[in-house]
Amino acid sequence: MRQLNVELGERSYPIYIGEGLLDEVSSYFVKHGISQKSPLMIITDEKVAPFYLEHLTERLSAGGFKVVSAIVASGEQSKSLANLELLVTKALEGGLDRKSAIVALGGGVVGDLAGFVAASYMRGVKFVQIPTTILAHDSSVGGKVAVNHPLAKNIIGAFHQPEFVLYDLKTLQSLPDREVKAGLSEVVKHGLIWDKEFVDWCIANAGAMVSKQPEALGYALYKGCGVKAQVVSEDEKESSLRAILNLGHTIGHALEAVAGYNELLHGEAISIGMIGSAKLGVRYGASEDLLRVTALALESCGLPTRIPAHYDTDAILAAMMHDKKFSEGTVVFVVPVEIGKVEIKPDVPIQWVREIIEELKQED
Amino acid sequence: MRQLNVELGERSYPIYIGEGLLDEVSSYFVKHGISQKSPLMIITDEKVAPFYLEHLTERLSAGGFKVVSAIVASGEQSKSLANLELLVTKALEGGLDRKSAIVALGGGVVGDLAGFVAASYMRGVKFVQIPTTILAHDSSVGGKVAVNHPLAKNIIGAFHQPEFVLYDLKTLQSLPDREVKAGLSEVVKHGLIWDKEFVDWCIANAGAMVSKQPEALGYALYKGCGVKAQVVSEDEKESSLRAILNLGHTIGHALEAVAGYNELLHGEAISIGMIGSAKLGVRYGASEDLLRVTALALESCGLPTRIPAHYDTDAILAAMMHDKKFSEGTVVFVVPVEIGKVEIKPDVPIQWVREIIEELKQED
Ligand SMILES: NC(=O)c1ccc[n+]([C@@H]2O[C@H](COP(=O)([O-])OP(=O)(O)OC[C@H]3O[C@@H](n4cnc5c(N)ncnc54)[C@H](O)[C@@H]3O)[C@@H](O)[C@H]2O)c1
Ligand SMILES: NC(=O)c1ccc[n+]([C@@H]2O[C@H](COP(=O)([O-])OP(=O)(O)OC[C@H]3O[C@@H](n4cnc5c(N)ncnc54)[C@H](O)[C@@H]3O)[C@@H](O)[C@H]2O)c1
Ligand SMILES: [Zn+2]
Ligand SMILES: [Zn+2]
Repeated sequence: MRQLNVELGERSYPIYIGEGLLDEVSSYFVKHGISQKSPLMIITDEKVAPFYLEHLTERLSAGGFKVVSAIVASGEQSKSLANLELLVTKALEGGLDRKSAIVALGGGVVGDLAGFVAASYMRGVKFVQIPTTILAHDSSVGGKVAVNHPLAKNIIGAFHQPEFVLYDLKTLQSLPDREVKAGLSEVVKHGLIWDKEFVDWCIANAGAMVSKQPEALGYALYKGCGVKAQVVSEDEKESSLRAILNLGHTIGHALEAVAGYNELLHGEAISIGMIGSAKLGVRYGASEDLLRVTALALESCGLPTRIPAHYDTDAILAAMMHDKKFSEGTVVFVVPVEIGKVEIKPDVPIQWVREIIEELKQED
Repeated sequence: MRQLNVELGERSYPIYIGEGLLDEVSSYFVKHGISQKSPLMIITDEKVAPFYLEHLTERLSAGGFKVVSAIVASGEQSKSLANLELLVTKALEGGLDRKSAIVALGGGVVGDLAGFVAASYMRGVKFVQIPTTILAHDSSVGGKVAVNHPLAKNIIGAFHQPEFVLYDLKTLQSLPDREVKAGLSEVVKHGLIWDKEFVDWCIANAGAMVSKQPEALGYALYKGCGVKAQVVSEDEKESSLRAILNLGHTIGHALEAVAGYNELLHGEAISIGMIGSAKLGVRYGASEDLLRVTALALESCGLPTRIPAHYDTDAILAAMMHDKKFSEGTVVFVVPVEIGKVEIKPDVPIQWVREIIEELKQED
């Protein structure tokens, strides 16, 4: 079992990563002072529930916890105000009070949704994350929680840190291959912004990760969470440094907005976005090697690096201009300088971005 | 002009109370660093808008601010997730970004709703309160913001402190008499829990307050906010002391739940609740004088002190048991010891409460 601490003063919390941690889940709940008198509510989705909900409920009940659970649909559309209302109904009916905890069992969708329920139910109750996707290593560190609005993703939310994060590597075995690869995109991102050695390790161990070898996944999640934790510790509310976590996301989010439903997973979109950022880095003077190694890391994880040719460049740019990272009219971009190091460029010429998007399409 | 500071570490903020402050509203916005580049959004209701929205918009625009505004229906039902979604739509359409501010112009309903929009839009933007009711002196201190759920009031919310509060006493002149009196209920409450001298002042100046004399209202709001600010400073997240602010609210909320729509205003319900609490105090050994002075203070402000006879006692008790102040099954009550001093009693016998509710009905 590996343990990692996210340092945030009195809101600090640990992340536990290991195989079979769900078996002893109760001891973690007891250790972290989750109430056994007040009911807790597990929120999960319809794909995760059949695999792990019964086991988790049984283990917690056996440990003396009162368990209520709620299952939402799988997928991004579940991050909605309608589900917030529904889950609050369940919480009230289940008798959850101020000392209750909300437990997220699932990927980033369940984590973000359950986290916002925890942040806003009675103005905030305890929150525990049990991530079951690789991508959720990202969403489980940092306390960003949110639901979507028809006009914008993650626009209604809060900062709400969990009490602790419990990563049982066994749960990753049921994860579809495409989701595994998409999750590795954020793992690689954490290397690209912070840790060259880890990028080298990812290239060397891509095969082991893609085939879900627990030892490789455990180390990857430990390192990925570790980078994110360091960044977040230094800048909890995203005033400056935390923005580097958005590497690849400016283009990535725009691609997601323009793509048809489920055409591109988030991790796939930011994989392409990170290639775009590397190209930008080269324009700003970085060595060609930056682009080569970035592409190698992503491709060895089976991730896409090109924009499908039928995507409209103007539509991508328009989507980008509505992105919330454009504060006070300036265009902010995270640009790599070398592998393991990025900079925030506040004034990237839109023309350059347009040209790079065209390149990313033509090389398809 | 009176000024008061709510001390909350780095979230501290001032409350300005005076006549005609809206005329110079821009200077306060500039002083507090509200962005002139990013648009701000004023949220108000349909009754307040005709009186003050144009003036406020004009003064802010003249001061160089970009102003968007949104008008919701008047009344408690506006504190809804549906309005949150609608206001986020307006905010996105109006181009609000992370540096934008949300401005509440109105009573507690607008303050709570706009505050929750500010707390959750992009995970939190700046918030300014311009209260236009007396009751809002209460809601504008402490940072509690929320919307309602069909099953429970204020159940979905956050703690989100404003940048500052601007109380223009002129805006109170248009407030209906019944709302004036209802607002004075919380003013008196602040005396009852903390400051005997201020209770005496309230009794002596009730007439001046009820007739909306600016000097009396200015002092009352200054003192009322002051008590609340002291309590909140010592306990921002309601772990202990802050609970004393709920004097009269356990019974009061139950009465609101049982009453027909608009039959009892919040201030009226808690006025009756405070009589109930005083009776409880006497049962616990306080002097009869406690009840006499409490009743005198509330009656001289024109507030009700009896439960209408047609209210069902069992329904009131049932509503009380669902109140969120009942944590982990124990019944918590704020009980006065003497004028200006209260205690939290964790285990008040339900039978006593039942008897007191009956008394409050029979003396009608
Ligand atoms: N809060 C943050 O800081 C942050 C950071 C990154 C991403 N996110 C959010 O995370 C979300 C994406 O996360 P995700 O990729 O985990 O999505 P997800 O939760 O939708 O999971 C992906 C898919 O895998 C299924 N699934 C999950 N665990 C499984 C398992 N163990 N076995 C089988 N199937 C399983 C899910 O039902 C879903 O169909 C997005 O909404 C994104 O906005 C948030
Ligand atoms: N956040 C907190 O700490 C806190 C504390 C106490 C109460 N509250 C909330 O405050 C709300 C009650 O506040 P309220 O009594 O101010 O209600 P309100 O906002 O509904 O205002 C009362 C009525 O007066 C009208 N009005 C407001 N200002 C006016 C003016 N200047 N001239 C003419 N009409 C005017 C409104 O349109 C409304 O009809 C409740 O929702 C309660 O939950 C919150
Ligand atoms: Zn991401
Ligand atoms: Zn009140």
